Amino acid sequence: MPGREAYAANRLTRNDFRGLDADDPLNGARGEFDLPDETIYLDGNSLGAMPRTAADRLAGIARNWRRDLNRGWSEHGWLDAPLLLGDKIAQLIGADAGEVAAGDSTSVNLFKLLAAALRLRPGRSTILTEDPNFPSDLYIARAVERMVGGEVHVKSVPRDDLTNAIDDDTAVLMLTQADFRTGYLHDMAALSRIAGERGALSLWDLSHTAGVYPVNLNSCGADLAVGCGYKYLNGGPGAPAYLFVARRHHDTLEQPLAGWLGHEKPFLFETQYRPAAGVARTICGTPSVFGLATLEAGVDIQLKHDIDEIRRKSTALTRLFMRLIDQECAADGFGIITPILDEHRGSQVSLAHPDAEQLIAGLADHGVIGDFRAPNILRFGFAPLYVRYTDVWEAVARLKEATRG
Amino acid sequence: MPGREAYAANRLTRNDFRGLDADDPLNGARGEFDLPDETIYLDGNSLGAMPRTAADRLAGIARNWRRDLNRGWSEHGWLDAPLLLGDKIAQLIGADAGEVAAGDSTSVNLFKLLAAALRLRPGRSTILTEDPNFPSDLYIARAVERMVGGEVHVKSVPRDDLTNAIDDDTAVLMLTQADFRTGYLHDMAALSRIAGERGALSLWDLSHTAGVYPVNLNSCGADLAVGCGYKYLNGGPGAPAYLFVARRHHDTLEQPLAGWLGHEKPFLFETQYRPAAGVARTICGTPSVFGLATLEAGVDIQLKHDIDEIRRKSTALTRLFMRLIDQECAADGFGIITPILDEHRGSQVSLAHPDAEQLIAGLADHGVIGDFRAPNILRFGFAPLYVRYTDVWEAVARLKEATRG
Repeated sequence: MPGREAYAANRLTRNDFRGLDADDPLNGARGEFDLPDETIYLDGNSLGAMPRTAADRLAGIARNWRRDLNRGWSEHGWLDAPLLLGDKIAQLIGADAGEVAAGDSTSVNLFKLLAAALRLRPGRSTILTEDPNFPSDLYIARAVERMVGGEVHVKSVPRDDLTNAIDDDTAVLMLTQADFRTGYLHDMAALSRIAGERGALSLWDLSHTAGVYPVNLNSCGADLAVGCGYKYLNGGPGAPAYLFVARRHHDTLEQPLAGWLGHEKPFLFETQYRPAAGVARTICGTPSVFGLATLEAGVDIQLKHDIDEIRRKSTALTRLFMRLIDQECAADGFGIITPILDEHRGSQVSLAHPDAEQLIAGLADHGVIGDFRAPNILRFGFAPLYVRYTDVWEAVARLKEATRG
Repeated sequence: MPGREAYAANRLTRNDFRGLDADDPLNGARGEFDLPDETIYLDGNSLGAMPRTAADRLAGIARNWRRDLNRGWSEHGWLDAPLLLGDKIAQLIGADAGEVAAGDSTSVNLFKLLAAALRLRPGRSTILTEDPNFPSDLYIARAVERMVGGEVHVKSVPRDDLTNAIDDDTAVLMLTQADFRTGYLHDMAALSRIAGERGALSLWDLSHTAGVYPVNLNSCGADLAVGCGYKYLNGGPGAPAYLFVARRHHDTLEQPLAGWLGHEKPFLFETQYRPAAGVARTICGTPSVFGLATLEAGVDIQLKHDIDEIRRKSTALTRLFMRLIDQECAADGFGIITPILDEHRGSQVSLAHPDAEQLIAGLADHGVIGDFRAPNILRFGFAPLYVRYTDVWEAVARLKEATRG
């Protein structure tokens, strides 16, 4: 619905934002979260808000633990939770049922898949990535490089050189779909296609896109992916992460965190590891049941809403925030480092300012929660399910006050 | 207090067990767990019982998540939880503060420490272990072998050959302190000492001992350890695990799951990984806050009770169970595969029987929960904090009925 806010093409006023909220087809979604009324929360890309059902789900699992003890693993589906929840997450990221497993952390999952990618592409020794990629993704890539040894190495090139750098030594192209600092969005379809044409695998970190952007892993031809559960999926503090393996790799994928639940028959306690069929072979240890439950609470909300509608609102929120910064804070020394073009921008706006850290702290004192990222970035994430258009207006108004002190 | 049940030296009766409960200095501890009255739960080595405080702690974290959102990481100590809880667990396993971190699964932690051990002992290429060790520990060891490649290999020898097999190619001796099938206890002090004398590291899996046995890592000279949170520590379904690194290795330990929270300065988001000081460098991703909270609930109960008292009761429970099997079920074809000598026995009794699987199922129908382990083992774990002496009597009585039923 481009142009929904076109009537506000000139100078924006508070009333414009009230009107946008009134007309917002997602304006009922905020009620599915339990958020303090007074808080304007623009940090859902750090830790998402709490689904209203989360506390009850935790209490329900505690009841089942108390009453059924170890039988909970079978009677309450705890053991199957990584795959059942994986099937739900698959619907959010353009994957098929059976291609996603929930569990462990994003870094642990990335380690599994990078090591697996090198095994899937013997004779190729480059892990290709962007300079800069998300720092902890780089740490893990270099840790894989160091552990495998030999010729394997991580190669980081600037974004514009990525396409040319994919060559016949590239085992895997590892990228974060939306840059955590700037919000810049990669073209997953084009890069996955080029990687595939040159015999390389593509591995995507969806931590800053899943839930706010129509991720289409399979239609883009992506091979592998990982993502975080506690940002826009609203899974709670330290919620399990997830990973995706395209079905075509299921029979040959071999990952190094070969734990008991990735075994074909875990309860036989065989001394030899035999990987389970499908994505189940990526599971390592016993599922963290409480974390999976709150993650499912968040994912269930996502599944009720159309991702294209979410993306439309996300784009509008970020565009309007940038317009208001121009309109209200032109003299305050902010640099907008987020892409202006909608198709290049994730669900965040990042501003550079020499006093970024103090400004973020000052805003928090006035009920607006953003994030500071060193050295000089104010980062604001817009979760369309619970961020209101009037929040955008209020946030900029308070930022202006904070800046002028 | 050896001899507490000596008055029952002849034929045991139900009254003997009632008397033991009445005199049990730990008989108040069961009230700290929320257990169904009618259940005789002899499977705490699979999934422990629920601490009474667990549900409230979960609800408290949900409240803090709702209200304080991402500020919870600092304001409620979520970020420090792995080390703060690690310090508590350290007290249960004979480690010092700063040597233990909670998080991830046992298998993930074992992977970290095995890879680290190989780095600490360059030029040595053998991971030495017992045949059979716990299956998933073997899976992980072989996965490390495969990923590192080169000369590194896993060598499994029968228990009696372990000492002779430690040689100048042994990088690490990896053992489970109590065998999960039989309950056999290794001599941690002797084996750690011999490993050390021959230049190898010792790595212990404490999953079946921590909480029911006085584990003394430092006085035994152990180098590394891992353990499970959801068995005798009563941390809840899929609770985080933990790991131990002796302080003398803190400066040189390098582990491959180099995630953001193991970084010296996580919030600088530097592109280069710099390991944190101390055991913090073993932490990988964001802590799973709900799981850590229920684990802490379980650990807090342990800390209120003397581990020597717990071990005394554990030894009595298992000894009496075996005596009753002899007394009541002599004709029923059970073989006791658990060591008879107290000092060789963990907190479990395992019986071999051709109908093991059906018997365990039949017992469960009559309120006695044990575990079947393929191919023919009935496994009963005795958690002294909530298992009563009369539970031992009842369990054997019902087993007798089930066998003859």
